[in-house]
Amino acid sequence: MEQVSAGQGTPVALGLEDFAVGQIYESGTLTVDAADIKGFAARFDPQPFHLDEIAARGSFFGGLAASGWHTAALTMRLLVTGGLPIKGGMIGAGVELAWSRPVRPGDTLRVVSEVIEVRPSRSKPDRGFVTVQSRTLNQKDEAVQEMTSRVMVFRRG
Amino acid sequence: MEQVSAGQGTPVALGLEDFAVGQIYESGTLTVDAADIKGFAARFDPQPFHLDEIAARGSFFGGLAASGWHTAALTMRLLVTGGLPIKGGMIGAGVELAWSRPVRPGDTLRVVSEVIEVRPSRSKPDRGFVTVQSRTLNQKDEAVQEMTSRVMVFRRG
Repeated sequence: MEQVSAGQGTPVALGLEDFAVGQIYESGTLTVDAADIKGFAARFDPQPFHLDEIAARGSFFGGLAASGWHTAALTMRLLVTGGLPIKGGMIGAGVELAWSRPVRPGDTLRVVSEVIEVRPSRSKPDRGFVTVQSRTLNQKDEAVQEMTSRVMVFRRG
Repeated sequence: MEQVSAGQGTPVALGLEDFAVGQIYESGTLTVDAADIKGFAARFDPQPFHLDEIAARGSFFGGLAASGWHTAALTMRLLVTGGLPIKGGMIGAGVELAWSRPVRPGDTLRVVSEVIEVRPSRSKPDRGFVTVQSRTLNQKDEAVQEMTSRVMVFRRG
């Protein structure tokens, strides 16, 4: 099971009026082991390079690598548990994702998010959309995933 | 645990030369229950509307809904197990995702993929990139997720 440490995110839940372009939010950390990688893959992405060290060695990845969807799910966990504390929860409308580097057994991940757009809804005055660029980094500060997501955020007021 | 039935995809593994714009590939099916939804959420997306029926009723979703990342992971499972049989495995370079409708307990999902671009690599003659639009549909043929992915594919030859 992934080991998790608490985030440094503000404990309060943020409303639309709290967001501004350029803000940076940083999550806690989480360490993944080979059993986590294989367990996720067996259920959701059963390909040899995510399931077996020997098979992975001869593959494109040159060794056991987490499924990109596992990396994405772990990123969500880090965002939801302190990385981006949004009032009423984190409800994504759309996402762009790129996996820049594989996640390996023993990697410790964290997510650094930057607000790149804040836009009130035209039709619904109680909410808006915040666009966030979230980089998932390993313990060497190398990006393993780059994600841009458009998230629905309600006003606090 | 999700119930899965086999895909109708060709059993052979497809190389770059097998792909052409306009081709349609269809996966098998998979049925999700409330325990699956809560189990995934507890591990990767612990928000009340993915974890608890009562809390979900008063939320944006109006009832228990799967995490979008769970939908994405299930889509990958359907693609990898017959939905899009690629030689050497399915290695994604980048993805765009939108969740059009929540996945509910009891939903049966399948994935219909259309090839929208095939492009040989400029630098590496043994491979290329195929862009695929994959729609994840529920039992009423409603789209729950729309995904465009750019996948690396090796030549058969």
